[in-house]
Amino acid sequence: MDIWFLLTPRYMALDFVGPAEALRMAIEEGAPFRLHVAGPARECVSSLGLVSCIDPLPEALAEGSLVLLCGTVDEDEDYATPEAQQLVAWLRQHITPQVQLATVCSGALLAGMAGLLDGRSCTTHHSIVDKLAALAPAARVLDNRIFVEDGNIATSAGITTGMDLALALIERHAGADIAARVARRLVLYMRRSGDDPQLSPWLAYRNHLHPAVHRAQDLIAREPAQRWPVEDLAGRVHLSPRHLTRLFREQAGVGIVEYQQRLRISLVRQLLQQGVSVERAAEGAGFGSARDMRRVWSKYLPGSPGRPGL
Amino acid sequence: MDIWFLLTPRYMALDFVGPAEALRMAIEEGAPFRLHVAGPARECVSSLGLVSCIDPLPEALAEGSLVLLCGTVDEDEDYATPEAQQLVAWLRQHITPQVQLATVCSGALLAGMAGLLDGRSCTTHHSIVDKLAALAPAARVLDNRIFVEDGNIATSAGITTGMDLALALIERHAGADIAARVARRLVLYMRRSGDDPQLSPWLAYRNHLHPAVHRAQDLIAREPAQRWPVEDLAGRVHLSPRHLTRLFREQAGVGIVEYQQRLRISLVRQLLQQGVSVERAAEGAGFGSARDMRRVWSKYLPGSPGRPGL
Repeated sequence: MDIWFLLTPRYMALDFVGPAEALRMAIEEGAPFRLHVAGPARECVSSLGLVSCIDPLPEALAEGSLVLLCGTVDEDEDYATPEAQQLVAWLRQHITPQVQLATVCSGALLAGMAGLLDGRSCTTHHSIVDKLAALAPAARVLDNRIFVEDGNIATSAGITTGMDLALALIERHAGADIAARVARRLVLYMRRSGDDPQLSPWLAYRNHLHPAVHRAQDLIAREPAQRWPVEDLAGRVHLSPRHLTRLFREQAGVGIVEYQQRLRISLVRQLLQQGVSVERAAEGAGFGSARDMRRVWSKYLPGSPGRPGL
Repeated sequence: MDIWFLLTPRYMALDFVGPAEALRMAIEEGAPFRLHVAGPARECVSSLGLVSCIDPLPEALAEGSLVLLCGTVDEDEDYATPEAQQLVAWLRQHITPQVQLATVCSGALLAGMAGLLDGRSCTTHHSIVDKLAALAPAARVLDNRIFVEDGNIATSAGITTGMDLALALIERHAGADIAARVARRLVLYMRRSGDDPQLSPWLAYRNHLHPAVHRAQDLIAREPAQRWPVEDLAGRVHLSPRHLTRLFREQAGVGIVEYQQRLRISLVRQLLQQGVSVERAAEGAGFGSARDMRRVWSKYLPGSPGRPGL
């Protein structure tokens, strides 16, 4: 199987290198892949500043080939260039139902410009989901997904999720055994499935600069199942309860109670994915009962904790 | 703060690109870092075949600089070259207590050859831990760690763990807020701490080719907290209980009971890290009691589930 990584002149190094290393290791483990690196410009400067020469875009693709579109450093500037337009024209001509296309990060924008996502479910990096939706209004752009597969086109959130998508492709085309061996070599602790959310609540609500609010968030995040009366929390971070309550909402953009509830619900999700029962998951995450948990769940997440496949 | 990535002529692309992208994004988020890419040879061919030119090794390092040693494709061959020896001599001269050193993957071998790990706790990729111990007999080589910090020297397991180490360094030198923002941009679901094990039991014992044993492992791994009598499991994979028992041990290299127990203990570890109590964690992972769980824990893991900082 021929796999073509396509790079634009100022590509994001990790969008390319993450999945490419995974596929290279799969070859070492016996996968019948051949890797090629090509693009509209012979010379590329990666996001890390290293300059390399790559092959020109292929004139034809063998049936069953896989094309991987990597993202770029600044999609607004980099995708307005003649090289990007040349790549979009090439995609229109060569991505047929007989070949597979996978995108990493802002690579989805190129596929969108080529009209390849029309009528498809797809995703991209959380920072540019709106751009993709504006650029490909006939696509069903899904938010907060690691990757989305729809027919012969797979799109991933980007950066490290390119590796998750590569592992899924390796599993499909070379077997679960080789995929597991590659994950081990990459020291990826656990593969993420397409349905996993991109943004963990453990990382959300943290893009502020207030050290006391960070300390309060650290305390809650380390023990989300414990009770955290605002008085205790305030004492631990040397603020008055009233001051902490106000600062927390101002800085984190969310209240203390909601912050803890979101962490608890995320913990419940993880427990359910690991095969723990709904009742035990609710208890483990600090809810008084499964009923309490369901009530809180319905405030923050669609569906219900009992739905299969969660 | 000056950060020097040092590459050997046939470096592992992901060992470099993972942490380098994290540090580059930290700069975009405001971290006061300057990145340099240098090495003993001007021209490098990455594991992915792209050729780039890099800077020569610096003649002096500013106090407080950070040097990152990346791994290579084939440490036996690549570290026997004159270039690698030149790098080892440079390390001996320039890595003083006033600078920091961090290694990714087989980069630890170079540090070991330079005598920099003598008397230190350190780690490397799980596939070459024995090599590092043989090469640096005065080092305390720890197995199964994501990264290990000892004084001014940090060593990581390699490949994707270079990003975990980079995030820890970003947090130390530029704050938790920038580290969290970078993790979000990388779409890393959750940062791993140094103490996390490299090899998840969810990935271990899977490097065989028997589909029925893989199916049995999938069933257990999806619901490790459930009871799995061998008769049920055998029925689900269309083998006799006796045949499955024998095949499982032959192929996975571990018995069915031990396999499930290891998954359950791993689940307990995760629950404890998330702040769940020992009792609830034991229940959540399917143990009859905390006592049962502790008994099984002591068979597979050092320490005890109650020890702080786990």
